[in-house]
Amino acid sequence: MKNHKLPEPVIRRLPRYYRCLELLRDSGVERTSSGKLAELMSSTASQVRQDFSCFGKLGQQGYGYNVSKLISEFGDILGMKTVRSMILIGAGHLGSAIANNFDFEHYGFRLIAAFDNSKELIGTVIRPGIEIYDIDRLEEFVEEYRPQAAVLTLTQTAAQPCAERLVRCGVKYLWNFANTELKLEDTDAVVEDVRFSDSILVLSYYMT
Amino acid sequence: MKNHKLPEPVIRRLPRYYRCLELLRDSGVERTSSGKLAELMSSTASQVRQDFSCFGKLGQQGYGYNVSKLISEFGDILGMKTVRSMILIGAGHLGSAIANNFDFEHYGFRLIAAFDNSKELIGTVIRPGIEIYDIDRLEEFVEEYRPQAAVLTLTQTAAQPCAERLVRCGVKYLWNFANTELKLEDTDAVVEDVRFSDSILVLSYYMT
Repeated sequence: MKNHKLPEPVIRRLPRYYRCLELLRDSGVERTSSGKLAELMSSTASQVRQDFSCFGKLGQQGYGYNVSKLISEFGDILGMKTVRSMILIGAGHLGSAIANNFDFEHYGFRLIAAFDNSKELIGTVIRPGIEIYDIDRLEEFVEEYRPQAAVLTLTQTAAQPCAERLVRCGVKYLWNFANTELKLEDTDAVVEDVRFSDSILVLSYYMT
Repeated sequence: MKNHKLPEPVIRRLPRYYRCLELLRDSGVERTSSGKLAELMSSTASQVRQDFSCFGKLGQQGYGYNVSKLISEFGDILGMKTVRSMILIGAGHLGSAIANNFDFEHYGFRLIAAFDNSKELIGTVIRPGIEIYDIDRLEEFVEEYRPQAAVLTLTQTAAQPCAERLVRCGVKYLWNFANTELKLEDTDAVVEDVRFSDSILVLSYYMT
């Protein structure tokens, strides 16, 4: 992990601030306050002000925040205005669901190819325009097209060796759905895990 | 939302504590400290101690925490030792991926049925033993089998009306993958959203 300026909890809250701000904008709100944002975030006004202080001067005491300006600012910080190419590893049900329904472009990504080891899938498309290639051709493809990031929608056991291959050939940003802790300590890889279990346990907590 | 004792941020950290503790146990660690847990959680020792103070006496000053005892305690709080039945709405790719790969039982849930409106899917199974029923039969099924929770793996547009139907017939715990803000204000429904976008934006942040 590289050293970045923002504390990790603030980074994790940024996408949620962004969503709340989009909601406000979409309901016609032009200015908002730390109190209103705190309410939407199930947080406190002082937490919001403290988080926002990381970004320099965003608003003026007593005048609140300009919603569009914040959206633009946070979109910038989150890299949403760039376009990075991404490949998908594992073209099963989860890979198909994500390839077909997730709006990569909205978040600054472009999905350019999928990979699998299944003979039936190789050579077909995962969604119009996105071909499924043989995983054996991964290194060759990466060399030619230089994707910066990969979505891992493969099995738990396949995830670790595949992540190592990706990092070795230069794809070091991994979006990991494989429900396993990837060990890539001596590399500069950045792994973002999606943990369905953390989420169902929060629901479970409220049911008890 | 009902009133619960724990603050929301602590509830959200609990599943992550649980995972870290399982990792420690699986590598043979019997006792741990707030410092070690903080390291695994990218947090601080004082944050860990503050969180744990919500649960009463879990350890002894200077002796650290017993890993198995914490796992058992947190598993209890998270409802993992109970069994709640759950239905899945939307038997497309995402629904199939979750039905087939997510270990519901480990988290205290049992998947008992799936629903869809596609004529080709109705009457088939989403995984061995779990039939796909016509969504038109939802109310009838709920009346008979009383599932407590539902996974929403359907389209954005179908999610809101379907959530309303579920809550109306008594299924009030919703695990929502539909990437839309459900509006169920005047009900006692509890919605837990899974937001792929929050996660890809964290990855995106590290890429900029």
